[in-house]
Amino acid sequence: MQDPSDSSQPLSPPRGMRDFYPEEMALRTFIFDAWRNATRAHGFAMYDSCVVESLDLLKRKSGEEIVNQIYAFADKSGRELALRPEMTPTLARMVAARQGSLPFPLKWAAIGQCFRYERMSRGRKREHYQWNLDIIGEQSVSAEAEVLAAAARALRLMGLGDSDFRIRFSSRSLLSEILRRLEIAPEQQPAVFLALDKRGKIPDETVATQLRDAGLSREQAARVIDAMRISSIDEASALTAGDSKAVQELRDFAACLEAHGLGDCAGFDISVIRGLAYYTGIVFEGFDSTGDFRAIFGGGRYDNLLAQVGGRPATGVGLGFGDVVVAEILAERGTLPSQHAVADIAVGFMTEAERIPATRLAAEFRAENASVDAGLAPEKAKAFFSRASRSGCGRAIYIGPDDVASGKCRVKNMADRTETDRRIPR
Amino acid sequence: MQDPSDSSQPLSPPRGMRDFYPEEMALRTFIFDAWRNATRAHGFAMYDSCVVESLDLLKRKSGEEIVNQIYAFADKSGRELALRPEMTPTLARMVAARQGSLPFPLKWAAIGQCFRYERMSRGRKREHYQWNLDIIGEQSVSAEAEVLAAAARALRLMGLGDSDFRIRFSSRSLLSEILRRLEIAPEQQPAVFLALDKRGKIPDETVATQLRDAGLSREQAARVIDAMRISSIDEASALTAGDSKAVQELRDFAACLEAHGLGDCAGFDISVIRGLAYYTGIVFEGFDSTGDFRAIFGGGRYDNLLAQVGGRPATGVGLGFGDVVVAEILAERGTLPSQHAVADIAVGFMTEAERIPATRLAAEFRAENASVDAGLAPEKAKAFFSRASRSGCGRAIYIGPDDVASGKCRVKNMADRTETDRRIPR
Repeated sequence: MQDPSDSSQPLSPPRGMRDFYPEEMALRTFIFDAWRNATRAHGFAMYDSCVVESLDLLKRKSGEEIVNQIYAFADKSGRELALRPEMTPTLARMVAARQGSLPFPLKWAAIGQCFRYERMSRGRKREHYQWNLDIIGEQSVSAEAEVLAAAARALRLMGLGDSDFRIRFSSRSLLSEILRRLEIAPEQQPAVFLALDKRGKIPDETVATQLRDAGLSREQAARVIDAMRISSIDEASALTAGDSKAVQELRDFAACLEAHGLGDCAGFDISVIRGLAYYTGIVFEGFDSTGDFRAIFGGGRYDNLLAQVGGRPATGVGLGFGDVVVAEILAERGTLPSQHAVADIAVGFMTEAERIPATRLAAEFRAENASVDAGLAPEKAKAFFSRASRSGCGRAIYIGPDDVASGKCRVKNMADRTETDRRIPR
Repeated sequence: MQDPSDSSQPLSPPRGMRDFYPEEMALRTFIFDAWRNATRAHGFAMYDSCVVESLDLLKRKSGEEIVNQIYAFADKSGRELALRPEMTPTLARMVAARQGSLPFPLKWAAIGQCFRYERMSRGRKREHYQWNLDIIGEQSVSAEAEVLAAAARALRLMGLGDSDFRIRFSSRSLLSEILRRLEIAPEQQPAVFLALDKRGKIPDETVATQLRDAGLSREQAARVIDAMRISSIDEASALTAGDSKAVQELRDFAACLEAHGLGDCAGFDISVIRGLAYYTGIVFEGFDSTGDFRAIFGGGRYDNLLAQVGGRPATGVGLGFGDVVVAEILAERGTLPSQHAVADIAVGFMTEAERIPATRLAAEFRAENASVDAGLAPEKAKAFFSRASRSGCGRAIYIGPDDVASGKCRVKNMADRTETDRRIPR
């Protein structure tokens, strides 16, 4: 059905897509810069690929829910293509294609636009940008800690303090160990994860019903829900065998987070499940401390990703961090960056006769690596200085006939209103 | 027809799309950084929108040739969408939507991925990135000069000198004036532009035949082709009325380019036509001096763009600068940026016991704003230093049990092999 708003607003972007006017673009650049700087601070290499992927690749890897939400289309040769819903299948494809020659462990990062066709609800968009961090080929939990430390650095670079966000982590293998001890078969576990992931959103009785539907006995269901009430790694340990590998991993992981300076803002939380996705080990999510927003980022360890697209098995850790939720949080906190000045220096001129001298002066400043917003037409002094002030330029120069006659002009410091002389180049 | 290479290379990107592995991404980042820095040096504001546009918008603006090459598809609501072939229709839409409130003249820039479905020939791709500079609402040729000066700055930031590139410019209105003097009707002119745009690619006799097909007499056709032999603004002046507005504009434009320091690398060239596009005034193209490559950038003045998408008429100037040709030129010249170091500092460790101290040290360096490539697993000293050397890190620190015992480690300067001591945080 054609959206009725399309014809009434022929100048709006397609439904669910975003325009970035300069003020919105300044915020996006602020977020992307934090991502890029955190990528570099943690020694990840940037990669990218096209937003168009083959539908077959996405089907090989993604769950059914995601496939139903893919923007798919055929090109003029009948090739089945799609707008990627996430970066991970592409990452797996690129790494698998060069698995024999790339140096592992790989630490790769990307900022990619991703699309998902969903019903529109209160401002939910159909595209977003996601920063992805992946480490492939490293068994130890230093990999999980490294991607989380990079994500935390990005938040700090956006102005959030350590008390402003919380990292919650759990372990799929811990949960598997607990389920095994309750004699729940491996093939039942995906359905159990799915039911448990809904806890908090639906009543525990409904979760219990879904667990029964998955084939669990009444007692098993009760004990699973009971297990979800634990709140520490020590309590988790009591539910597993004494030599639990998952518990040891969680302890090592907590120690690594502490060493990264994240001890105070990260904590074990068995309710972190991360949906039906391909995670096999530690899983984690980042939230703002108020708890008023959806997750800022999430991720975990996967073991089967490369094999799913045709590569050899390799363990990996991934983290995805979208631009939408963090932008909402920054807006709510009022810590958005102040309007970015378009340039360091504004140059204006009074009459046609000063056009060329003003252009020469602007070129000279630029050759000195200053950024210059150069007037393109004669304007009145008042209009020029008001524009220069609004645009946040640090210095402003207005050239009139007298300046050209004398061969020099005044450079006005917009902060303290002081003026200095400058020669006008000939 | 399905491309046979698709099944034999299931790990390649869709046909015509590019993967950016870290080394290719480093080049792309180098080019994008030059574009962004030139954008800022010239006081343009960055904007963006989604790569998905409504097909209707693209049809309203683009020529038939482009519409045939659009990647179009319908979403699950039957909405007709497309991957944009260029940024300009989107720019026109966004400006028209806020035409009443935006401050003119606008100076806007974007780096956008654009798609075009073409037959694949010798490495031709179906997507590329294009830097777009537009100034809307300014009549004077300072606008044309400003976008060209910004493009030239980007080339300099990429390492090209003034003798390495040439800007060629002409004027659609000059050509119109000349055609009017030859009594060629305005409605014949698009066909004439189209034929003249092929000069150099096909023999002049074939051009003449196409001009006859457009309704020109044999004498008109000959005189048009003759007019295309002029090589200076003065010669152009002789073919127009004494008070030619187009000639005066070209002279003013040349003076502006001179003031921007571009006098030596820019010249009048009547053969610059810029296809059938929407240009109405000055048009220009940038080439590398060898002449071995397609145009690096191109653009010109348009007057009808906003009106075409439903806005009020406004004059504007636009320039598009793609990433593909300039990358070929940089590769040919051997002036590609050297492999970008992943980080400033590499940190490695010998045994499990140093994992946490090494992690603490990496976190401490990062808190001091250094970028750190931190080892994730124990490794041998030789392997660590060889990796650190390959990755281009300036400093390398390898922590063993003795270092942890003494509470300090050695920071090795990879350039001069000198070492300094550093405390290991506890």
